Amino acid sequence: MSYSNTRVLLASRPVGLPKPENLTIETVEIPPLTAGQVLVKTSLISLDPAMRGWMNEGKSYAPPIGIGEVFRALAAGQVVESQHPAFAVGDYVTGVLGAQQYVLREGDAAQDPANPAYLLKVDTSLAPLETYLATLGMPGMTAYFGLLDTGQPQPGNTVVVSGAAGAVGSVVGQIAKLKGCRVVGIAGDQAKVEYCVKELGFDACINYKTEDVAAALRTACPKGIDVYFDNVGGDILDTVLLQINLKARIVICGAISQYNNTAPAKGPANYMMLLVNRARMEGILVGDNAARFGDAAREMAGWLREGKLTSPKVQTEHGIENFLPTLNKLFSGENFGKLVLAP
Amino acid sequence: MSYSNTRVLLASRPVGLPKPENLTIETVEIPPLTAGQVLVKTSLISLDPAMRGWMNEGKSYAPPIGIGEVFRALAAGQVVESQHPAFAVGDYVTGVLGAQQYVLREGDAAQDPANPAYLLKVDTSLAPLETYLATLGMPGMTAYFGLLDTGQPQPGNTVVVSGAAGAVGSVVGQIAKLKGCRVVGIAGDQAKVEYCVKELGFDACINYKTEDVAAALRTACPKGIDVYFDNVGGDILDTVLLQINLKARIVICGAISQYNNTAPAKGPANYMMLLVNRARMEGILVGDNAARFGDAAREMAGWLREGKLTSPKVQTEHGIENFLPTLNKLFSGENFGKLVLAP
Repeated sequence: MSYSNTRVLLASRPVGLPKPENLTIETVEIPPLTAGQVLVKTSLISLDPAMRGWMNEGKSYAPPIGIGEVFRALAAGQVVESQHPAFAVGDYVTGVLGAQQYVLREGDAAQDPANPAYLLKVDTSLAPLETYLATLGMPGMTAYFGLLDTGQPQPGNTVVVSGAAGAVGSVVGQIAKLKGCRVVGIAGDQAKVEYCVKELGFDACINYKTEDVAAALRTACPKGIDVYFDNVGGDILDTVLLQINLKARIVICGAISQYNNTAPAKGPANYMMLLVNRARMEGILVGDNAARFGDAAREMAGWLREGKLTSPKVQTEHGIENFLPTLNKLFSGENFGKLVLAP
Repeated sequence: MSYSNTRVLLASRPVGLPKPENLTIETVEIPPLTAGQVLVKTSLISLDPAMRGWMNEGKSYAPPIGIGEVFRALAAGQVVESQHPAFAVGDYVTGVLGAQQYVLREGDAAQDPANPAYLLKVDTSLAPLETYLATLGMPGMTAYFGLLDTGQPQPGNTVVVSGAAGAVGSVVGQIAKLKGCRVVGIAGDQAKVEYCVKELGFDACINYKTEDVAAALRTACPKGIDVYFDNVGGDILDTVLLQINLKARIVICGAISQYNNTAPAKGPANYMMLLVNRARMEGILVGDNAARFGDAAREMAGWLREGKLTSPKVQTEHGIENFLPTLNKLFSGENFGKLVLAP
């Protein structure tokens, strides 16, 4: 059988918000499989804030996407042809499949967790496929290790999380509740705010677009802030810094408010509150904990089964040609929960 | 005997650099001692960057100096009269004596380390009095605990310290050398730069006023920066952030470049390098380690005796009426090493 693969390439590096001219969408034919190869059809492409950073040149934790290369993307898919004994037609897998409809892999490389071509088999009888891109995937692992290892929440602590209704934030807040903390979210619209409080069990959630965040935090965090899990940076980080407690932990997971800046980024002007409070600000990267993903996934799967943890809402868009407008919903805040694209 | 005490009071809170109208200098008579009291004549007043913060209103690690109160200052002095058995005329002491020529204390309170009136007896046969305001005092303790506990220097690490020729920075760099690190200082004039390299044994020192700091750091730190001990904040902090290594530790000890800002402070715009490098920025305060000062002082006194550690240069100014111009030398960088005032 022959397959047409429509895929998204990076054509140029954006200044500010990514635009259509920064991408090329093209259709190519997949060549017939040779011995040892496996072909995966992409079911769901994960849209993640980190993608914006990968479009830039310069030193970062991952190399930039090369010009003319397939746009890097985590995704979930299903094996449709295989000439490698480790993969059978019908297997569900996740991996860095890229923003494309199909991906051809060498089966040997795809078996090696240290290889970028790695394909992780997932069991859709335990959880729906999209969960492996959310709670049991990169966002869930980010929340789990970032909160527990770096945030070190103690029972009775107050934990604040921004991007609270998102794929990472919603898990952070729920795990903090499981650890006996008071949890206060920050989100950008009223439906998200209500979701965090009513469906996820947060103690409070602040709408940063309509409320005075400083005043709302003072009300919601009468004992101050012990842990802040930051997904947004900018003014919200600065506002939180003024209300941290002694020995507070600030987990720097992202700064989505700054990713499309054309002016120099705004640094946290109140960072000297770290000195006043002998507090710590620390960056995290999910991949550092790869060796422990299995254990974390088992614990989180248990929480999901027992109803102690609710998977984020999933918002599914359709059509590979809609890759860019879908990506940009992350920056406008139009997404709600985990944003995926069925290509 | 009667004593006239000339002293400095805080008259108003400065905007920007402190000015004469922010202070009152007055002379009062010391009343005759009553039972249990002790009178100390101030020999040397310590000038420290933290004093600028104490002049401001608002939440900090220490309450602000009240309007009309004696200006808070660490100092060293000698007992000139005593009606308390624990203190004898001639005893040398350090403590928060204030910016004044004499201070009258209740002997019981002065024996309690937890009391702000505490007077610590020091032995001038082991080290000169000024050393108890420098290496064996607050700046030395700040360097010792900030570098070792928070910076966690490992043999072979590259340690960068700003304010390198100062009372804190000079000790930080020397301890880092003792721990087997490559040490690079940053200072504001050529004499300081040469002092750090030739007298203190730093591997390199950068003059931030005449050199391109980013380029000079790249040359001086070919393996990147593992520990940055920051006394200055501002542009230098931002420049260092772009050259930190994976898991780097940034010790926030001060931000003297920002203390007299009238505009909002400049936050570190490159703080997302903390995420890129999974690095940590943490504030320190020397007083948190008070229970361990004795042990640290014994270890540092040993290094001083063995010639492994050189006390900072001491710059002594004279006359209590010169308190303000002396303080302001800290902010213009006109001081060299430990700045004290003989009142």
